[in-house]
Amino acid sequence: MRKELLEDIGEKELINRLGKFMPNNQASDDCALIKTKNEKLLINNDSLVENVHFNDLTISPQDLGWKAVISNISDLLSSGSYKNIGIIISLILPAKTEWKWVEEVYKGMNKALKKYGGVILGGDCSLGKEKIISITALGIQGELELQRNASKPGEIILTTGIHGLSKLGFMVQSKLNSDNYVSINKRLVKKSIEHFCRPRLCPNFLKNLLKTRSNKTVKRIGCTDSSDGLFQALQDLAIASNCKAIINYEKLPKDKNWPKGDKWDEYYFFGGEDYELVFSLPKNWAMKLIKLDKNINEIGYFSKGEPLIEFKDGKKNKLFKKTPFKHF
Amino acid sequence: MRKELLEDIGEKELINRLGKFMPNNQASDDCALIKTKNEKLLINNDSLVENVHFNDLTISPQDLGWKAVISNISDLLSSGSYKNIGIIISLILPAKTEWKWVEEVYKGMNKALKKYGGVILGGDCSLGKEKIISITALGIQGELELQRNASKPGEIILTTGIHGLSKLGFMVQSKLNSDNYVSINKRLVKKSIEHFCRPRLCPNFLKNLLKTRSNKTVKRIGCTDSSDGLFQALQDLAIASNCKAIINYEKLPKDKNWPKGDKWDEYYFFGGEDYELVFSLPKNWAMKLIKLDKNINEIGYFSKGEPLIEFKDGKKNKLFKKTPFKHF
Repeated sequence: MRKELLEDIGEKELINRLGKFMPNNQASDDCALIKTKNEKLLINNDSLVENVHFNDLTISPQDLGWKAVISNISDLLSSGSYKNIGIIISLILPAKTEWKWVEEVYKGMNKALKKYGGVILGGDCSLGKEKIISITALGIQGELELQRNASKPGEIILTTGIHGLSKLGFMVQSKLNSDNYVSINKRLVKKSIEHFCRPRLCPNFLKNLLKTRSNKTVKRIGCTDSSDGLFQALQDLAIASNCKAIINYEKLPKDKNWPKGDKWDEYYFFGGEDYELVFSLPKNWAMKLIKLDKNINEIGYFSKGEPLIEFKDGKKNKLFKKTPFKHF
Repeated sequence: MRKELLEDIGEKELINRLGKFMPNNQASDDCALIKTKNEKLLINNDSLVENVHFNDLTISPQDLGWKAVISNISDLLSSGSYKNIGIIISLILPAKTEWKWVEEVYKGMNKALKKYGGVILGGDCSLGKEKIISITALGIQGELELQRNASKPGEIILTTGIHGLSKLGFMVQSKLNSDNYVSINKRLVKKSIEHFCRPRLCPNFLKNLLKTRSNKTVKRIGCTDSSDGLFQALQDLAIASNCKAIINYEKLPKDKNWPKGDKWDEYYFFGGEDYELVFSLPKNWAMKLIKLDKNINEIGYFSKGEPLIEFKDGKKNKLFKKTPFKHF
C-alpha cells in the first residue's frame, strides 16, 4: 500500500484530521479561545527542529510528540504553574511527510497532556524543508513564583533528580560509542533510553514545596529546569540572581552504575534534556523538602561573588572550562 | 567590516539583545507572564517560512516583521479581539543569519504592535536550515464573537476592502510579468507594493459593528480574514456555516485602474495576503455599516444550499473551477 503523504491529503483535510485530537473535535477557526479568571498566566514557547533536536533514527514520532510537550510543560512547572491549560502547536513539515508520522506525534502529545494536564487548543501547519514542532504552552501561576533571578547567597542548591541519562540514551540510540574504555551496565542503558525518549516530570514538586514552607511570606524561589543541561541551569540561576554557585561533586545524585571519568562528568553537566528542576531554598526549608521527597538532592549552595560555578574542593573546576554545547 | 552573524554572537547574547525590544527590557526567563481578569482569551498562531511565504528579494526584514505581526493580529481581529495583549515569537534561523536581519525584523514587529496594540511577551530561538518566524498572538474577546460558523442564509456578504493588490505587489517585487498584454498603471504598482510589504488593518471595524447594531442580543457574526485569498475566505465561511455564497461580480470593490481579464480575476480571488475581513450580516445592519464606513462593501449574500461559491449571473463560475493555491 502506498504511504499517505501530506501532499496527497492537502492542508484543509490535514487540519480536519487533527481536529479529532482536540476536545469536542472542534472545527478549525482563526483563533483558539480560553476562559480566564483573575489570575496570572504563564506562557512558554519551545521548538524542536529536525536534525538539530531530533531525527527519525533516534526517536519514534510518538515519543517525539511526548517529548515536545514535556519540554514545554517542564518550563511551565519550573516557573510555578500549578495547572496547565493547554498548547498551541505550530508544525512545519515537508510535503513528503507521511500522515502516519503526524498522527503518531499528536498521539504522543495527547498522552503527555493526559498525564500532566492540558489539552490541544489549536495550531497551524505550514510547508517547510525540515520538520519543526513549535509549541506554545499556557499554564496558571500558583502561589509560588519560580524565577531564575530569585536565588540568594546562603541558599542550598537542589535538584529533583539524576542528570546525564538522557544524553547517554541519545548516544545509545544514535549508535555512538559513549566511551571506548567502559562497558555500560544493561539496566542503565535501558533506563537511559527511557529518559531520552519518554522523559518524566515531577508533578508533586509545587505541592511539596508548599507543604514544607514554614514562612508563608516567601513567595519567590530561584528555579529553572535542566533542559539545556545542569551546567546551563546553574549558570542561568547564577547570572540572573547575581551570585556564585558552589557545587559539592560528592553529593551529585548519580545512577549506581554511572561510570567514572571526565567523559561521564561531561555527559552529566552538559548533556541536557533531563528536564529535572534545579532550584535553591533557605537551609531549613531545603532539609524539610529533602526529608519529604526522596528524589530531591542537595548539590551545593549559593554564595556572594561573581556569577559563575565552582566545585567545593576546586579539584574538578577544569570541567567548567569546557564550552557547553551551543546550537549557534 | 565583517557582517555580524548569529554564530558569532551565540544564543545567550542573541536573547539578551532581543530583550531590548520587550517592555522593561525584561531578562529572559523560562516563561512570559500576563495578568488576566474574568474574560475570554483569543489565541492565534501563524508561521512564515522562507521561500514558501517570503524571500529576501521581495521583502525587507523590517517589512517582514511588520507583516508577520499583521497576519496574526488580522486573525485576532477577525475573531473579535477588542484588545491585543501581545505576541510570543519563535524564530528558527540558520547560523549564518546576520544579527542585523533579526534586529530589523524585531523593529518591524514593534512598529506594527505600536500601531495596532500589544507587546512582545517572549520567545525562543533555534537553529534551522531555513528562516522561520512563528508567532503566537493573544487578544481579549470583545462583546461580539466573530466565527466562521456563524453566517446564516439571507445574510449580506461584506468585505472591508480591495483584494488582489498584495498579489500584484508580490509579482512586481519578484519581477514576474503579471500580464504580457497589459501595461499597469504606475500608481497601482506603488499601491500594490505597499499592500504587499506593509499591509494595514481596520482597527475601527469592531467599534463600527457595535455602533450600527440595533439588536443587542445578536452576539455571533460569521467572519474570517482573506489572508489565504478571498475565495478561501468565502469557502471557509460557506463550509463552516453550511450555506451557499452568491457573489455579485459587479459589486466587487476594485482599484480604479485594476485591469480586466481572467488573470486579474484570479489574482483578485486567489491572491491572498490582503488581510481584509470577509463577513456577513443581516441586511439592515449591513446597510447601516456600509453607510458609516465607506471602505466596507456588499459583495453578495448567503443562501440555503450546498456549501460552495457561485456568481449571481453564473457567467464567471468557471473561475471557481480553478484549484486555489495549495502549500501542500
